[in-house]
Amino acid sequence: LPSKLPNVGTTIFTVMSRLAQETGAINLSQGFPGFDCSPELVALVETYLRRGANQYAPMAGVPVLRDALAHKTLATYGVNYDSETEITVTSGATEALYAAVAAVVRPGDEVLVFEPAYDSYVPAIELNGGIPVFVTLTPPDFRIDWEEVRSKVTNKTRLIMVNTPHNPTGRVWTTDDLNQLAGLVQEKPIWVVSDEVYEHILFDGRTHHSLMTHPVLRERTFVCGSFGKTFHITGWKIGYCLAPAGLTTEFRKVHQFLTFSTVTPMQYALADYLGDPERYESLPAFYERKRNLFLDSISGSRFRFKPAEGSFFQTVSYAEITDEPDYDLAVRLTKEIGIASIPVSVFYQQRNDYQLLRFCFAKDDEMLMRAGERLSRL
Amino acid sequence: LPSKLPNVGTTIFTVMSRLAQETGAINLSQGFPGFDCSPELVALVETYLRRGANQYAPMAGVPVLRDALAHKTLATYGVNYDSETEITVTSGATEALYAAVAAVVRPGDEVLVFEPAYDSYVPAIELNGGIPVFVTLTPPDFRIDWEEVRSKVTNKTRLIMVNTPHNPTGRVWTTDDLNQLAGLVQEKPIWVVSDEVYEHILFDGRTHHSLMTHPVLRERTFVCGSFGKTFHITGWKIGYCLAPAGLTTEFRKVHQFLTFSTVTPMQYALADYLGDPERYESLPAFYERKRNLFLDSISGSRFRFKPAEGSFFQTVSYAEITDEPDYDLAVRLTKEIGIASIPVSVFYQQRNDYQLLRFCFAKDDEMLMRAGERLSRL
Ligand SMILES: CSCCC(=O)C(=O)O
Ligand SMILES: CSCCC(=O)C(=O)O
Repeated sequence: LPSKLPNVGTTIFTVMSRLAQETGAINLSQGFPGFDCSPELVALVETYLRRGANQYAPMAGVPVLRDALAHKTLATYGVNYDSETEITVTSGATEALYAAVAAVVRPGDEVLVFEPAYDSYVPAIELNGGIPVFVTLTPPDFRIDWEEVRSKVTNKTRLIMVNTPHNPTGRVWTTDDLNQLAGLVQEKPIWVVSDEVYEHILFDGRTHHSLMTHPVLRERTFVCGSFGKTFHITGWKIGYCLAPAGLTTEFRKVHQFLTFSTVTPMQYALADYLGDPERYESLPAFYERKRNLFLDSISGSRFRFKPAEGSFFQTVSYAEITDEPDYDLAVRLTKEIGIASIPVSVFYQQRNDYQLLRFCFAKDDEMLMRAGERLSRL
Repeated sequence: LPSKLPNVGTTIFTVMSRLAQETGAINLSQGFPGFDCSPELVALVETYLRRGANQYAPMAGVPVLRDALAHKTLATYGVNYDSETEITVTSGATEALYAAVAAVVRPGDEVLVFEPAYDSYVPAIELNGGIPVFVTLTPPDFRIDWEEVRSKVTNKTRLIMVNTPHNPTGRVWTTDDLNQLAGLVQEKPIWVVSDEVYEHILFDGRTHHSLMTHPVLRERTFVCGSFGKTFHITGWKIGYCLAPAGLTTEFRKVHQFLTFSTVTPMQYALADYLGDPERYESLPAFYERKRNLFLDSISGSRFRFKPAEGSFFQTVSYAEITDEPDYDLAVRLTKEIGIASIPVSVFYQQRNDYQLLRFCFAKDDEMLMRAGERLSRL
């Protein structure tokens, strides 16, 4: 069978997590919490499992969960989404991202991608016949040059992929970024997919500027979110897509043939769990402490960094330590000092190597401190 | 946003289930059990939820579940699949079907589809730029004319979609069907997707002839299965794909960007639950009794039928009762006598109407008898 994705191997997350497991390394590579979700949430799932909520959920998600999402979105961002026609529950944000791309992109369409980029975007675009067009962001700031973005828009541009807070750099979009993007897509047949899975993880008093908060973008964006990242349940694979009714209609046509629906008892449990805003409003403080703990623990090292603005990733430069390629260093550190990370070059199409490693700090304090200690010895 | 699937509306399953709910009708339309899964299976999920199995499963599925599937497949069909390289756990069989199609089909490729066909096949093919080529099967026997099939194979044919036991007709493939298909694809660049989600539901002493049991087909088929249909957990959305290593490599490239992985605690629970073969070997007798109960209850009516050979669906002809279009009748019966069914025309591309309705008999006995009573009054 000739490959439709000849450039795709096993994702780096699988590769590094497996290596970490084989070597017994501390796994700061793949982005998942090293601690459990709340027992209350588990108890809620048990309630619905026992009540027999074990058959197909409605294709768009159970109504109470969509209602709870509408409520939370209004409370958090002041933006209204109709739960009947504008909210869809998906099998993880990965499915939401794929379905949104598949709903829009046709063979030959161009899709703007800011790189470094999460590794699912390009294969999703290519499987749908689209052509990724890259806007390359570079350290130390990873700021977007909007002149450059405008210069890459053609009459074939059909979609723009956005990610804020950003994986792997931790950068968050400003209102100026939103305005620039809105100016660019307004009155053009260009849609936007916004990956906002870290929407509740911002630091140092920053607020998340969801694309939905800009009226122009509200009308042409698929906003993709994740319960896994917010409630420490990456293994339950429940995400969602908020999009205006016209876009949601097309999104659901794809979703219903990709997975049809999503695990029922967890949906009911999350609907109840969302009722208490404290459960997601506590997240910035929770993760800021972990970020600081990790940064303090490497503050005496020769790693250089700007503290992440959001997400649960910290990207650091090792240029003062070694000039090894980042991939080699990530593998070596896993094997030699037992710390697994992600080489940032994998997020660039041409594997640009800026001598950066990404560490996930969604881990137990003790593990973060042990990691910092070992890294500081380099 | 112009639609990429202009012919797709909301699936008939959603439409009819919603109408059934609104009208309080007995829902024999959408194919899901009207009863709960076993409490043992729920208890196993609870165990793993509490043990903290709440983060990402490996992309291909948790190893113990893949091992259990390999073991079950060998015990049931005498066929070996390597759990490391040939078995992938998916977010329902729907995802498995989509990923298999996406792994193979490129723009312009032709895909043979036997109709009546499950409603996800054609959109999956079309979203990947493929061209469905139909082989139309007709009542009362829905037998395959292999001369006709051969006449539709061209040098653009890249994939053939198979479904046995068949939804909606209940027909099962014979070894002759397998041999005919093998002769047709042998030494050609043609692959096969086999939807075998009802593999454990066959009646009157029949055996399931999985495509994997034919050595030629074993090497070019994606066999898609479903825990939902087998263990009464359609809402957990866990299925799988068995395919030779070369095909699995391409399948996983797609799967990892469609959903990445599948709900972790349920995977561990199913790995344990599969340990006792009685749990799926009891299925034929369980459903045969229900099929017979339903058929007995309408035996005095003017509905005409051949008992389903497999699946949990019974298709019946109403030609002696009325000449209404099947869609209209299905809606009318839901509203007037409170019985929801599926009009079989929806499974035909051109909406061929052979005056057939499909009833799902995976329901409580009492409900089936009440339904039969009402239907017999027509
Ligand atoms: C789906 S595995 C990758 C998890 C993640 O978001 C990351 O590590 O970047
Ligand atoms: C995914 S909803 C449809 C369930 C089913 O297999 C059917 O009713 O045919």
